[in-house]
Amino acid sequence: MVSKFDDRRERLKNELLEMTSLVEAGIRGSMLALVESNRAAAEEVCRSEGRINAIEMAIDQLAIDLLALHQPMATDLRFIIASLKINTNLERMGDLAVSIAHSALGLIDGPNVKPVIDLPLLAGLVQSMVRKSMDAYVAGDAELAQSVLESDDEVDALYAASHQRLVEFMQLDSANVKPTLDLLVVIRTLERLADHATNIAEDVLFYVKGVDVRHNSLAQRLSGQNA
Amino acid sequence: MVSKFDDRRERLKNELLEMTSLVEAGIRGSMLALVESNRAAAEEVCRSEGRINAIEMAIDQLAIDLLALHQPMATDLRFIIASLKINTNLERMGDLAVSIAHSALGLIDGPNVKPVIDLPLLAGLVQSMVRKSMDAYVAGDAELAQSVLESDDEVDALYAASHQRLVEFMQLDSANVKPTLDLLVVIRTLERLADHATNIAEDVLFYVKGVDVRHNSLAQRLSGQNA
Repeated sequence: MVSKFDDRRERLKNELLEMTSLVEAGIRGSMLALVESNRAAAEEVCRSEGRINAIEMAIDQLAIDLLALHQPMATDLRFIIASLKINTNLERMGDLAVSIAHSALGLIDGPNVKPVIDLPLLAGLVQSMVRKSMDAYVAGDAELAQSVLESDDEVDALYAASHQRLVEFMQLDSANVKPTLDLLVVIRTLERLADHATNIAEDVLFYVKGVDVRHNSLAQRLSGQNA
Repeated sequence: MVSKFDDRRERLKNELLEMTSLVEAGIRGSMLALVESNRAAAEEVCRSEGRINAIEMAIDQLAIDLLALHQPMATDLRFIIASLKINTNLERMGDLAVSIAHSALGLIDGPNVKPVIDLPLLAGLVQSMVRKSMDAYVAGDAELAQSVLESDDEVDALYAASHQRLVEFMQLDSANVKPTLDLLVVIRTLERLADHATNIAEDVLFYVKGVDVRHNSLAQRLSGQNA
């Protein structure tokens, strides 16, 4: 027999996975909109926002019910806290996918600046981080979560190189300014999506290992500095 | 006599207020760095990041102890959940202040593009939202929290107008591109700070009123649409 606690915990996890699917579809759809000038794909992404927001509220309520009705301890408590934090991250990620879809709609009618950078490469890295961070959550896999933290550096490097190329392209001709600005916002948004996947991986490590891995070296430095 | 629960709850609140002071000093310092080309102020903001990160971890631990040791219900439970969420927002806000300070350092040596927009006006609005959202948290003041939500529209409008002016300025001369891009990032960061203050105000409303005010109209629409 499954206890009420296990049942609610399972529902919490499944709702987060449903939300993850929507976020992944949002990133995929907004990239399709950008790369193939697919207006319908962008509009579909914009429509998913309401569904993601509704699930976010349902997940918070499930987590609060779990805390209030079952008073969980240790790993169970950390799992719920991590789920609450992951929930917030996924909702923001949904918003960011919608914001890319909006940029895509703006870029469809303008001059084609997209070939200046390798957008699919950057987007592919980010999508892989999102997938791995949530796989790590489901499996409670600390090693997989750790690998997400390492991918973030790769994304940062690719972002910096793409940014540099786009700035140079803007400086060539003032007609390039507006569309290139839109594309700069897109790559910045992809970089923020990667940051959220990193946050999720850190939340997984906290839940699985019971240690806070955020700001590690900084915290060590500070513990020597402060009273 | 003060109970152990009340004592821990008070410490949680005070740590969040300490973090708020650091975030406010960060925004103030980064603006001083920008507007008065004050390099020392920017460097001071960059140094505060470690302290903010350490407090973030301490607050999470305090909240988890409160949940595990006292199994709070109703308003107390909502207060702790809201504090956890506010903690995450404040840490991001600290990061954003540091990012403005970095932009300021980059802008000090370049051509002066700042007079193109009214930066102190935008920053002042954002600072007022941060202050009000945390005053609302301390006082449990729903009305004050509500007023923060309304200010966000004002910030969005001012951001949009400033963005438009900066894009036009970039188009005038390719020498304007780089410094103006830095300033575009700054106003976008201020707009994100306002979003975080809005998130905090929503968390306060959830804690005080026991209702989730996020995505209100959307959730209503969806509840009619979905099974």
